[in-house]
Amino acid sequence: MLPEWIYQECPGISELHRDAALARQAQLTKPAGSLGRLEQLATDLAGLQQTERPRAERVPIIIFAGDHGVVAQGVSVYPQEVTIAMMSNFAVGGAAISVLARQLGSSLEVVDAGSLAELPMPGIVTDKPRRGSRDFSKEAAIAPEELAFALACGRRAVQRALEHAPDLLIPGEMGIGNTTSSAAVAAALLSVKAGQIAGSGTGVDAAGRARKVRVIDQALAHHELTKSGISAEEILCAVGGFEIAAICGAIIAAAQHRLPILLDGFIVSVAALAAVRLNPSCREYLLASHRSAEQGHGLVLKALNIQPLIDLDLRLGEGSGAAIALPLLRLACALHNEMATFAQANVPTAS
Amino acid sequence: MLPEWIYQECPGISELHRDAALARQAQLTKPAGSLGRLEQLATDLAGLQQTERPRAERVPIIIFAGDHGVVAQGVSVYPQEVTIAMMSNFAVGGAAISVLARQLGSSLEVVDAGSLAELPMPGIVTDKPRRGSRDFSKEAAIAPEELAFALACGRRAVQRALEHAPDLLIPGEMGIGNTTSSAAVAAALLSVKAGQIAGSGTGVDAAGRARKVRVIDQALAHHELTKSGISAEEILCAVGGFEIAAICGAIIAAAQHRLPILLDGFIVSVAALAAVRLNPSCREYLLASHRSAEQGHGLVLKALNIQPLIDLDLRLGEGSGAAIALPLLRLACALHNEMATFAQANVPTAS
Repeated sequence: MLPEWIYQECPGISELHRDAALARQAQLTKPAGSLGRLEQLATDLAGLQQTERPRAERVPIIIFAGDHGVVAQGVSVYPQEVTIAMMSNFAVGGAAISVLARQLGSSLEVVDAGSLAELPMPGIVTDKPRRGSRDFSKEAAIAPEELAFALACGRRAVQRALEHAPDLLIPGEMGIGNTTSSAAVAAALLSVKAGQIAGSGTGVDAAGRARKVRVIDQALAHHELTKSGISAEEILCAVGGFEIAAICGAIIAAAQHRLPILLDGFIVSVAALAAVRLNPSCREYLLASHRSAEQGHGLVLKALNIQPLIDLDLRLGEGSGAAIALPLLRLACALHNEMATFAQANVPTAS
Repeated sequence: MLPEWIYQECPGISELHRDAALARQAQLTKPAGSLGRLEQLATDLAGLQQTERPRAERVPIIIFAGDHGVVAQGVSVYPQEVTIAMMSNFAVGGAAISVLARQLGSSLEVVDAGSLAELPMPGIVTDKPRRGSRDFSKEAAIAPEELAFALACGRRAVQRALEHAPDLLIPGEMGIGNTTSSAAVAAALLSVKAGQIAGSGTGVDAAGRARKVRVIDQALAHHELTKSGISAEEILCAVGGFEIAAICGAIIAAAQHRLPILLDGFIVSVAALAAVRLNPSCREYLLASHRSAEQGHGLVLKALNIQPLIDLDLRLGEGSGAAIALPLLRLACALHNEMATFAQANVPTAS
């Protein structure tokens, strides 16, 4: 049993504010419905944020990093030390998400939720239960008390972010091997074989992908994750990762504080799926950004019943896909809040 | 025969700069190809702009407005005076494109390329051969000398924009009835029936759309636009519109000055198709933004061999779809220009 906070109900959407936003949309100087998905984004956000003027200006990005014991099974083309090297790259501003955060005016916090780093790293919050998860092809990746710690790590990060009155949250991830862990978690949550979920990650070839699929399917059997009634908690312990668990906790905590979450790609979406299984009331706070090129993402988005905004063959992670989609939300809000009505502009309406 | 400038060759793409940009992409701290379409956008822009550091910062938006005689045939749900009312709305800042221009830091110029306005309007450039096109169900919409004037109107607008050293250009349009004129132009250029192209525009119902299709098919027959060997010039005169012709001229002039054009939706894309027929060398300078909900847009984009970036059910026009996609280009450039290389960040590369 996980700590009590995980199961606390998230507040409901404000129908009052969503309806007011819908009424406003109908009065703006444009043919009804002509801003398509952007109209829906603005009205959904109005309901979630309990306001007639939805906002997507203050959007902190929090990257959770972790290492994965399963990398010993040869599931990634990158060596394991890339996790730590990229954490430094985030912090000094050279990574894709660093560039995006600067462009978007977003704060960027990097949390070491379970990397192999031995010492605290400059510019990075260290908040981990252990250095790296265990190799899930041989044993459970995470002990139950470590899972509780990692979930709370996500919650602590959200509490720090809440001090700056954010409008939305973008969680991101880094961790060599984490598409393998995520695919295992997703396969267990969705009761499908690894072949339907596991993709090329950072770029393994067909043989590498076949190895990944085999490792996952064997682990699902070994940990008995294919039997019915298995819980998200058991799945995360058996084949999860620390950054995945931290994102899962961050999503639940954000939704409990009425803070919508802009989802990134495959790994963050799998963490969101686990979050919804642990606490279904967080579901309404999930906003989709993009459809990743990573094979399993479509299936996970479908399970979340979420329609992505963009589909640009992105598969970088780090929260980058969500950051790239953020301007669409900002423009949706600006259009909703700033356009003139037919009456204000003295424009005749349709017959 | 149109004025000589229309046919002047546009400069070619710089393979040197595109190759240098491709080489740089391969060194950035991310799995190769993981930024998908954004990588291609950055490298294409580098080639077009002849630079190793592509930019999409200074992006003037120019809206060309015109009225259409064919509105007398009941092809729109909005009354004709909406064209002028919306031109005012653009100028005073209440329209969707006004909000977007402010958000993006873009200049917004409104050009009356052929509306019914009797007097010059405040904040609007008047540059028109005539007040409104003729009803193409009865006669040619545009006389040959009026077409030359409208094309040059687009060129003059580009010349004004060039004074501020733009990185890209967004042409937009406004004109009640212009989806009907555009559909007629597209049907003639692509040799298809109106039923394959004409959509709901600002929101006509099924009966309204059937009327629109009938009006167009009869006009194509009446003006003999279905015979082979018909020129884009003849098509624009018979069933075109002043704002469509002005955008066509603006696109050719921009490409001749090595200025890439970010295409909006159906109407601007039809103008681009006409531009490519008049001067095929402008083709390389066309960048797609979105796929409109307007039925014929997909067919026109296919004819232009252009893949849209976003597909959000937009169908507003005004250049709004291009403006909404602009942040994606800006982020693509920022990522290309500002990310660290593997060597700079001391990150191990893939095995």
